[in-house]
Amino acid sequence: TRMKLPGQKEFEAPSAHENVPVGELGSGLGPSPSTDGPSDTDSRELGVPKDPLLFIQLNELLGWPQALEWRETGRWVLFEEKLEVDAGRWSAPHVPTVALPSFQNLRSLLAEGLVLLDCPAQSLLELVEQVTRVESLSPELRGQLQALLLQRPQHYIQTTGTRLCWGSTHQRKSSYDEEAPLKEQHQNPLRQRLPPGAEAGTVLAGELGSLAQPLGAFVRLRDPVVLGPLTEVPLPSRFFCLLLGPPMLAKGYHEMGRAAAVLLSDPQFQWSVRRAGNLHDLLAALDTFLEEVTVLPPGRWDPTARIPPPTCLPSQHKRLLSQLREVKGITAPHVTRPEDRHRHGLQASSPELQRTGRLFGGLVQDVRRKASWYPSDFLDALHPQCFSAVLYIYLATITNAITFGGLLGDATNGAQGVLESFLGTAVVGAAFCLTAGQPLTILSSTGPVLVFERLLFSFSRDYSLDYLPFRLWVGIWVATFCLVLVATEASVLVRYFTRFTEEGFCALISLIFIYDAVGKMLNLAHAYPIQRPGSPAYGCLCQYPGTGGNESQWTRTNPKDRDDILIMVRKVLSDFSSVLAILLCCGLDAFLGLATPKLLVPREFKPTLPGRGWLVSPFGANPWWLSVAAALPALLLSILIFMDQQITAVILNRVEYRLRKGAGFHLDLFCVAMLMLLTSVLGLPWYVSATVISLAHMDSLRRESRACVPGEPPSFLGIREQRLTGLVVFILTGVSIFLAPVLKFIPMPVLYGIFLYMGVAALSSIQFMKRVQLLLMPAKHQPDLLLLRHVPLSRVHLFTAIQLSCLGLLWIIKSTPAAIIFPLMLLGLVGVRKALEWVFSPQELLWLDELMPEEERSNPEKVLELEHPFSGSDSEDSELMYQPKAPEINISVN
Amino acid sequence: TRMKLPGQKEFEAPSAHENVPVGELGSGLGPSPSTDGPSDTDSRELGVPKDPLLFIQLNELLGWPQALEWRETGRWVLFEEKLEVDAGRWSAPHVPTVALPSFQNLRSLLAEGLVLLDCPAQSLLELVEQVTRVESLSPELRGQLQALLLQRPQHYIQTTGTRLCWGSTHQRKSSYDEEAPLKEQHQNPLRQRLPPGAEAGTVLAGELGSLAQPLGAFVRLRDPVVLGPLTEVPLPSRFFCLLLGPPMLAKGYHEMGRAAAVLLSDPQFQWSVRRAGNLHDLLAALDTFLEEVTVLPPGRWDPTARIPPPTCLPSQHKRLLSQLREVKGITAPHVTRPEDRHRHGLQASSPELQRTGRLFGGLVQDVRRKASWYPSDFLDALHPQCFSAVLYIYLATITNAITFGGLLGDATNGAQGVLESFLGTAVVGAAFCLTAGQPLTILSSTGPVLVFERLLFSFSRDYSLDYLPFRLWVGIWVATFCLVLVATEASVLVRYFTRFTEEGFCALISLIFIYDAVGKMLNLAHAYPIQRPGSPAYGCLCQYPGTGGNESQWTRTNPKDRDDILIMVRKVLSDFSSVLAILLCCGLDAFLGLATPKLLVPREFKPTLPGRGWLVSPFGANPWWLSVAAALPALLLSILIFMDQQITAVILNRVEYRLRKGAGFHLDLFCVAMLMLLTSVLGLPWYVSATVISLAHMDSLRRESRACVPGEPPSFLGIREQRLTGLVVFILTGVSIFLAPVLKFIPMPVLYGIFLYMGVAALSSIQFMKRVQLLLMPAKHQPDLLLLRHVPLSRVHLFTAIQLSCLGLLWIIKSTPAAIIFPLMLLGLVGVRKALEWVFSPQELLWLDELMPEEERSNPEKVLELEHPFSGSDSEDSELMYQPKAPEINISVN
Repeated sequence: TRMKLPGQKEFEAPSAHENVPVGELGSGLGPSPSTDGPSDTDSRELGVPKDPLLFIQLNELLGWPQALEWRETGRWVLFEEKLEVDAGRWSAPHVPTVALPSFQNLRSLLAEGLVLLDCPAQSLLELVEQVTRVESLSPELRGQLQALLLQRPQHYIQTTGTRLCWGSTHQRKSSYDEEAPLKEQHQNPLRQRLPPGAEAGTVLAGELGSLAQPLGAFVRLRDPVVLGPLTEVPLPSRFFCLLLGPPMLAKGYHEMGRAAAVLLSDPQFQWSVRRAGNLHDLLAALDTFLEEVTVLPPGRWDPTARIPPPTCLPSQHKRLLSQLREVKGITAPHVTRPEDRHRHGLQASSPELQRTGRLFGGLVQDVRRKASWYPSDFLDALHPQCFSAVLYIYLATITNAITFGGLLGDATNGAQGVLESFLGTAVVGAAFCLTAGQPLTILSSTGPVLVFERLLFSFSRDYSLDYLPFRLWVGIWVATFCLVLVATEASVLVRYFTRFTEEGFCALISLIFIYDAVGKMLNLAHAYPIQRPGSPAYGCLCQYPGTGGNESQWTRTNPKDRDDILIMVRKVLSDFSSVLAILLCCGLDAFLGLATPKLLVPREFKPTLPGRGWLVSPFGANPWWLSVAAALPALLLSILIFMDQQITAVILNRVEYRLRKGAGFHLDLFCVAMLMLLTSVLGLPWYVSATVISLAHMDSLRRESRACVPGEPPSFLGIREQRLTGLVVFILTGVSIFLAPVLKFIPMPVLYGIFLYMGVAALSSIQFMKRVQLLLMPAKHQPDLLLLRHVPLSRVHLFTAIQLSCLGLLWIIKSTPAAIIFPLMLLGLVGVRKALEWVFSPQELLWLDELMPEEERSNPEKVLELEHPFSGSDSEDSELMYQPKAPEINISVN
Repeated sequence: TRMKLPGQKEFEAPSAHENVPVGELGSGLGPSPSTDGPSDTDSRELGVPKDPLLFIQLNELLGWPQALEWRETGRWVLFEEKLEVDAGRWSAPHVPTVALPSFQNLRSLLAEGLVLLDCPAQSLLELVEQVTRVESLSPELRGQLQALLLQRPQHYIQTTGTRLCWGSTHQRKSSYDEEAPLKEQHQNPLRQRLPPGAEAGTVLAGELGSLAQPLGAFVRLRDPVVLGPLTEVPLPSRFFCLLLGPPMLAKGYHEMGRAAAVLLSDPQFQWSVRRAGNLHDLLAALDTFLEEVTVLPPGRWDPTARIPPPTCLPSQHKRLLSQLREVKGITAPHVTRPEDRHRHGLQASSPELQRTGRLFGGLVQDVRRKASWYPSDFLDALHPQCFSAVLYIYLATITNAITFGGLLGDATNGAQGVLESFLGTAVVGAAFCLTAGQPLTILSSTGPVLVFERLLFSFSRDYSLDYLPFRLWVGIWVATFCLVLVATEASVLVRYFTRFTEEGFCALISLIFIYDAVGKMLNLAHAYPIQRPGSPAYGCLCQYPGTGGNESQWTRTNPKDRDDILIMVRKVLSDFSSVLAILLCCGLDAFLGLATPKLLVPREFKPTLPGRGWLVSPFGANPWWLSVAAALPALLLSILIFMDQQITAVILNRVEYRLRKGAGFHLDLFCVAMLMLLTSVLGLPWYVSATVISLAHMDSLRRESRACVPGEPPSFLGIREQRLTGLVVFILTGVSIFLAPVLKFIPMPVLYGIFLYMGVAALSSIQFMKRVQLLLMPAKHQPDLLLLRHVPLSRVHLFTAIQLSCLGLLWIIKSTPAAIIFPLMLLGLVGVRKALEWVFSPQELLWLDELMPEEERSNPEKVLELEHPFSGSDSEDSELMYQPKAPEINISVN
């Protein structure tokens, strides 16, 4: 043949696209290229059937000339795994890198070789007969080759406990009809990790001295067949590639075999080769592949270094589009998805946020939409994962109830307390779970509402008012105002809550947590002074939960690192790390017999305030006009409740979480209003959605793909949306009221430590904090954030500084007597964000925040126009920018 | 022209090597290819002159058609830096990745274009005239093109404080003779980072609508000339590449320009193109480059991801060799270096370890070799770095002296104490620095010797002997035995100390440190019980030094991360972090007024034992025969001293530290023996080389390349080998004896904390500990160690388990009355290692440890033979395996 092997200097690649009419390339064209992996949803969204996943293995012919044998030396699904022969293990999955000449050699070999597309062989024997029907082979050589190809290859099958090294080694030259897969193949643990319907492709490569010239063959089987012991896993084989030749310099055939395997593992090449009609189509697909490869220069990269699998793979959309564009006559399916417009935030076109224009129109729509899901909201909870979620969230909830109850007791000087907190949490939580639009939400008396209650209490104390009746009227007014907001569909305004607002609010809540925890601890240190010379301080104890929580967070954000066997054990330990930390601290406290202040729990089921019944009397000792005057604080509180509730709802309903059952902004607000009324009447704390604990709830219910192929991180499939976990949690919380005697062993510093940790965890998860860190970091040390590639550092700093000032202002207002106007200032955040449009270009805001509705609608072309005409970077980053993200919930302790 | 641009499908690459006789390729061949960067020593070792470093910049023609201007958008030295236009900054240096078709397009353009090699142009004007002398251009177009090329390009020059963005923008169409470089160019901070003699290469690329067909030109200037404002840095230009053409799809010219720049930044291509005689040579060099590139498949790698510069670049040796092999008639220079045989350890052929066969032959040789360096040992210290080293090591030394003094006082029940420790450290240290073979060594009374002193003391107490006179005789005998060892050149046996022995010993020493520190602390806790309910514990305080030290370690092992401006400040802070931690703790202790036990320092300069003079009387109350009987413990102590001294010496003289002045094993042992005699006579502690503090000393004296180009980590040049720093340190230590009143403010727990940290730091730096961690780690989480690629996990575990058992045995012996035979067991380590040869194959030992002399000499082919014949991985790892390493000293607190 004319084939050239290493040492040749030319790229003799006949231009397939010139020789073959474009029309021919479409022969046998199916719907569209498949995309990656079992979990990729691209093709599902494109509405086309998926090609099966391909498992590729490389069998090498080794031991020439004395002891010829086939041995599997590499395998590919998404990434490459190499057999470490000396170490007797499969390497970690890594991005395959191949030297360019190997592809060129492969191309030459295939161009000269035998290509059988839709080969009807039904067994390995038939296949081998077909493949060896080459003119150039002498009958003797053909027989020898057939025997060689039928020889059983050696697989290194790594089972969990024992290792079945190399299959059964010395059963060579066994009967030709040995077509049944072996026991070892069935026991291969890799089998469970491949999705059903997966097919196999085998590349056989090696040196055979008896061949006078190289022999290349590429076979696509018409019907996929299990080819006996050929593949490590007993999958039906679709592709078969043979690359043999006389011994040559370097590791030519090894590398050529790897090149063939890498080619076959490419989704685009797979798509093409499954539909190829002839040799030209095959070579054209190879050329297309080579046009898309990225090249690493030799002197700047060590070719033996292994690149770990990237966390997110490039989308196949662009490749698909360009492919379809090339092949004329095929119109591109729907490939622009609405969420592509958004890196973050809500779906612009989400039906929940369309104004109907009718009174209570949004609420009616919410109820209607949610009603259809109602039965499934209970059926979907029938999964073991929900059990562990209930345990986890229950512990988080009672911690929350205890801590907020303690704070409430302080704030209201005993008018309300831990018992009210428990009762309120149970009643309100359960009711919300049963009726709300987003039943995954966990309600809590969060920071700002608590601040408001404190203000209200000191006001009524200063003016000698009867607190609970006054509070009842405030609650009635708030419920009324909220009803008005529901009626006027005010919730559609949440579209103006951008990341700027969300993160500002979140940072504030977190800082309040931290400040309260530290403040309480300092107070304790004052009340129970540290005796010197001395022994363990409270400060030391309070670090424990933080440590435990951190470990848990680490484990949870690296789900792909989990070991298969220990995964239950580990996950449980990590889920309960905070509980373990609490128990450890309590035990330590009890063991050392420290005189720490303990949680004061009422022993009887009666209101904390002595002498009041469960129903608050509407007037008490207050004058009648106070019920009208209560409308003023109620207006402010309504704004606060609205902001607090809706910002949380926006965060929970982010498009990244892939919620199927939709949000219910109007319904949620309606429920909060009604529960406000209830709690005011009963004298329980006021409740509103709690961001941090609700996120933890969702996180504990995330569905991930089980069968992930080596190197693929488990992909996020969605959240188990249902009402049962929340309901059970709150029923348990109610029951816990009678467990109060047990709770009195918990030292207060431990609870404050949890608070501190919750604050720090929430604070560290937001982009705002990353930008604050950038303020202090010299440019050289800054991470390679996409943001920094596109926005000048000074602009980033300006944006961060503005956000910081807003936060500072909010903090000052919260801490001074002006706290009463705090809700207005929270609303002001949205205004500030709007004003930023005069300072920053839309393009900058797109990177730093996201666009507000108006900008988006009126100026889509303005944004494009403002892209720097010289930047040359627009297409480079677009892949990353429009990457559909899995949610970055990394808060694991409530 | 026939040139094809993107959209073409073929690789039409005329085979240069077929068309051009091989002989022609050698035309103008210089000595040999240059290697990377200013600091690479490869070519120096090859004994050939280096080619200058090349700075490459890409100027793009932007703004077509209205506002044409040249703008620099990328630059390359070793790695690529991209201008982030929107963000207005240079990106971090990264490994350049280019799409393959760009190289093919570039090749076509160059093949059709103008290639001027050794162009005699002396200015930009002349160069432009030469380049535009192309037939296909109309006179009008030529004029337009000339004007365009003479236009001043826009550079983004990032100065430290201000930024001179884009040079001075609107001085276009300025006079043609503007050849002088601009002020901005001279102020460019990049200039200081390029080594003297660096040359520039400029790639100009872009779309020009007025051109009917593409225009490619490649120019090599005969004499490098500063081409006015063309380049960002006013360097003489050697290469000039022009890639212009009519507008086309995608970013064709941008990517082609990048491809050209990446090509020019490749050392191998540079070497070839500097010597190319014609177009064919140029194209052949490009083809050679393409044959060596690594390919990343499109679906598995995001081409927009930036790969950070690898910590070590592949050696250019192999590429050089293959290049030379191809170009016949050139014999390869000396490319196998002796240290390539060793990943670790001593140079096999080092002259220090050749047995002379004469009495004291090794000592005489050592003295002779060292004498020639003696003047330079003082002159080489004249560098500011030595000042900071003195401060750092002084603080470490007095901490050491204080702590060991305290332990010694405990061990000998006051027969010796802190004063003896200070005096001994100062006298012995200074004497050793002045006379030793390796003056960087810091002597100390290390753990095992201290254990021996303790044993000796309890023995003499139990038998009512006069301790110091008995000890004197032991010292005399030890000195005698050591002299015998010197005379017989026993030090050549250190070749049998492999990593197994070194790390076993190091682990033991570290564990002793940790055990002592924890034990002392528990004793303190007993003596000064923790009062509950209470206040800060000693345990808390003792963590501080650890934290401080860790931070320091982190900063020191990431030298490349240091910021240019803050580097002094930061380095000083990190160097003194341990001192700061000590001061902080002492301050805290004083501030809180804690009743911690303080260091007891003598106020007078007299021996700790009341009533003795500075000279120990030879007999005292002991019987005369005890002076003979002392020979028995002395024998054991001699073994201990020999092992302790020589293992440390082996570690300090590792080939990775690139010591120029050589080791002096015999001389060192001789000095230790003589000082043993001195300290015995004076009743001072016994001293032997201290591994950890000596390594810290070397680390503080490491020389690193200053001018490192972007992305290049500062390369390790060697150690400032001199005697002065040590000498000054010990003089200062002597002076400190009179500072004793200040030292009494140091609480003991702080010192024990430092001890704890020293132990942990030393322990965590050895490979043995990594393997111990592997024991507990599931296979999936294990790092991709080369070791694990080559040795089965079970064998690694077996090796670790054996090492652990040895350590356990040593520990038990040390802790029981059998401690007296401890030195013999230390010697036994070498025997165990020898016995491992029966258990492990030489190949396994090569990966787990290193080879012992015999194996290496007798069985070099056995090793090769035992390489698995099917592994196919021998050549893959060889690069990494024979990488000349910089030392991994990561111990920063003594």
